[in-house]
Amino acid sequence: MMPEKQALTTTSPVRGPVSGGHASNALAAGLTRALGPRKVLSSVSERLNYRYDAIQFGVTPLCVVLPESTADVVAVVRAARAAGVPIVGRGAASGLSGGAAPMVEAVVVSFTRMTRLEIDAARREARAQPGVITLKVSEAARPFGLVYPPDPASFRTSTIGGNLGENAGGPMCFKYGVTGDYVKALEFVDADGGVHTLTRDAYDLAGLLIGSEGTLGLITDATLRLSTPAPYTRTLMAHFPEVGQAAEAVSSAIAAGAVPSKLEFMDQACTNAIEDYLHLGLPRDAGALLLVDTDGDDLETVEEERDLVERACLAAGGQVRRAHGDAEAAALWQARRSVSPALGRIRPQRMNEDIVVPRSALPEVVREIRALGDASGLTLVQFGHIGDGNLHPNILFDPRRESAEAVHELAHKIALVAIRHGGVLSGEHGIGTMKRDFMRDAVDPVTLGALRDVKRALDPAGALNPGKILPDGEGMEHG
Amino acid sequence: MMPEKQALTTTSPVRGPVSGGHASNALAAGLTRALGPRKVLSSVSERLNYRYDAIQFGVTPLCVVLPESTADVVAVVRAARAAGVPIVGRGAASGLSGGAAPMVEAVVVSFTRMTRLEIDAARREARAQPGVITLKVSEAARPFGLVYPPDPASFRTSTIGGNLGENAGGPMCFKYGVTGDYVKALEFVDADGGVHTLTRDAYDLAGLLIGSEGTLGLITDATLRLSTPAPYTRTLMAHFPEVGQAAEAVSSAIAAGAVPSKLEFMDQACTNAIEDYLHLGLPRDAGALLLVDTDGDDLETVEEERDLVERACLAAGGQVRRAHGDAEAAALWQARRSVSPALGRIRPQRMNEDIVVPRSALPEVVREIRALGDASGLTLVQFGHIGDGNLHPNILFDPRRESAEAVHELAHKIALVAIRHGGVLSGEHGIGTMKRDFMRDAVDPVTLGALRDVKRALDPAGALNPGKILPDGEGMEHG
Repeated sequence: MMPEKQALTTTSPVRGPVSGGHASNALAAGLTRALGPRKVLSSVSERLNYRYDAIQFGVTPLCVVLPESTADVVAVVRAARAAGVPIVGRGAASGLSGGAAPMVEAVVVSFTRMTRLEIDAARREARAQPGVITLKVSEAARPFGLVYPPDPASFRTSTIGGNLGENAGGPMCFKYGVTGDYVKALEFVDADGGVHTLTRDAYDLAGLLIGSEGTLGLITDATLRLSTPAPYTRTLMAHFPEVGQAAEAVSSAIAAGAVPSKLEFMDQACTNAIEDYLHLGLPRDAGALLLVDTDGDDLETVEEERDLVERACLAAGGQVRRAHGDAEAAALWQARRSVSPALGRIRPQRMNEDIVVPRSALPEVVREIRALGDASGLTLVQFGHIGDGNLHPNILFDPRRESAEAVHELAHKIALVAIRHGGVLSGEHGIGTMKRDFMRDAVDPVTLGALRDVKRALDPAGALNPGKILPDGEGMEHG
Repeated sequence: MMPEKQALTTTSPVRGPVSGGHASNALAAGLTRALGPRKVLSSVSERLNYRYDAIQFGVTPLCVVLPESTADVVAVVRAARAAGVPIVGRGAASGLSGGAAPMVEAVVVSFTRMTRLEIDAARREARAQPGVITLKVSEAARPFGLVYPPDPASFRTSTIGGNLGENAGGPMCFKYGVTGDYVKALEFVDADGGVHTLTRDAYDLAGLLIGSEGTLGLITDATLRLSTPAPYTRTLMAHFPEVGQAAEAVSSAIAAGAVPSKLEFMDQACTNAIEDYLHLGLPRDAGALLLVDTDGDDLETVEEERDLVERACLAAGGQVRRAHGDAEAAALWQARRSVSPALGRIRPQRMNEDIVVPRSALPEVVREIRALGDASGLTLVQFGHIGDGNLHPNILFDPRRESAEAVHELAHKIALVAIRHGGVLSGEHGIGTMKRDFMRDAVDPVTLGALRDVKRALDPAGALNPGKILPDGEGMEHG
């Protein structure tokens, strides 16, 4: 069972009744006729499972379609359009911004059955349908000596379609780039049911679709670039009395020339949550932990880079432990991968931020956010891909005990800290519903107008995943 | 003096009189009042210098503005809009697709005075105004141990603004990515004179602007990612009796795991043009030449990679020469950098293609294009960044002796070869005017419609660089 979740947007979604009434029944019946009963879920008990992602509760869909081909997606889009019903795409719904949670009564298109995957070793490409699980791409590429680097924490469950929708990152992305950096071509179905095949040319419509959370079209196929894995990796853990020191170590190591393949940070509350959950022997008293991998073709260079990071950690007041062997390295990384389930044990809900700030501003930003958390009386933890300046301050709360308004207010203050330091709202999770209210702070009104123009050009009726990314404005509402 | 050039589009541009008449005078006078006389060029002799890029002759502009700030650009856009006159942006005009050549009577905005450049070593960023010369970025970054990898052949004269407009590549781009891969943020002025500041978030409007050739907005500032240069490089040259063999060597070397930092190809006509020009001692009898750099952190790995390429060249029937020392390597690369001026000595004009095909299709594509050239009776040479599958078949011609129609027909056939083999029209030069007629073959009508929708959303009046990228269609014309 998923914990009960609550919408956190100040502009509440339009909540329909659990049963969608007559229009819903007619649409579901029409879709069942067009696609066959195997591909349409219309009972309440089935539909209820498609109203949330991993962090956000949404509106129960009118019906759920499980397409098996691009032609099926076209049929759904046309039927929904004819019925005047919005469409929300969905992969594994492991996202952390509410991107896949319907904010209005809609047809949910769940891509879990579109799982065709082909590896072309000579071209160093994978061709994947949106329902392919992220990890499967690297698993299929490995026999050819190839790898697909983007590694969101949920890569054992998340799908390529979801990763594309949110332009997902992961620890490897500091050195190797995010999902969008690996996309060579895309197929998508537009709001009219038209099918587009795109390469990365002018105008780069593929780049526009990536990270657009299904608001501009539904991605039905992707050609992904594969690369060769680095043969050598070295891992270290460093812990610090105080969070700002960890940020200082990162900032100075990178300024000195280190490009670790992973550079992750967890604060004390995070470390303790993981210890409670997994009993790995992490230092509970430390104010902050860093986990660092360096990798490359040359062992000596990889070790020199690890040493450079080690020196920066020691200079910032940290203590360092090197991982001896793959098993110890894997245990350290298990800690980082377990942050989400570990936090879920503390409070039933969380507001997960995804800010990115300049590395040189990290010490100040981390300290300011810590102070905001302490002053709020709410439970705040910080972790993230600190090498990128990508931090995930998380507010953990129980909606029965803590007010959604107080949570939203703290989240807003954190977003403003990032913006004030020249940062942005989202590094890898997308804007979704959770941060769209903060877009007004992050994006100037002229540019927000241009984003609305682009949205309107590709989805004039606002039928694709309403209520995401763009804050409310003229002409974009559904209700 | 530039050689006389001729427009090659079948849909001829609207040629106005050399003097723009009354409207032009009023606009120039208004701009002179607004910006001061130092920033506006209005005499015929001055304006004539702004009607071409490095390959395409265009229409003499109504007037030329040399802005010194974003505010100046806003003033020009507003004045031109009020006068109903289109706007064409321009950097060094070293482009090879006609992107900067005005196709209608327009105000040309030449960014050559906007040359502010700042390096932030801690952030590994360069912030550049559009008029900064490409090479200057790496020169300014070098004292900090940093480099800006994109290296178009014209990087000693081309500007960052022009590189962004065409999403320019270069030899380094096979391993390190093209201009757009290094853009962290952009400022641009839209068709209304609004100023936008963009990071690479949803929706990735920055990515849409990059490569849009000034048709969606005028880029006025860019924050560029810098990286650390590889300490070791090894260079080799290989020559082959026949062009297809060179393509086979490339295809098999990369399939075997080599990722050279540069992998360039020249056919016999190219080699002989360079020999005539520079007398470097290149093998005139060879059907094809490959120039290869491998680079990295570890000399042994770099040399192993060079050896792997060497074995692939020998297996494909080639002969190999290793460069001993930096001077010899530099001399070999001077050959590649001199292709454009060397070809300019053979015929006064050229039609320069920029196709990208899957590497596995290279042998067949190179042979098919050679055969098309031989059958046409026109002078055709091939060279390019073959590691990417990015080829530059060039048709060299003299408009007094050879018909523009025959040239266009051959260019079209070459484009169709690329498309038939799953390739695209442009790897690094942009579509411009020269390839826009072929967009109908390369892009399906549904997607072409979406591209038009995006263009219309950001430039409803079609005022920004008319006649580029998108082939003629409803509502996008100027005349």
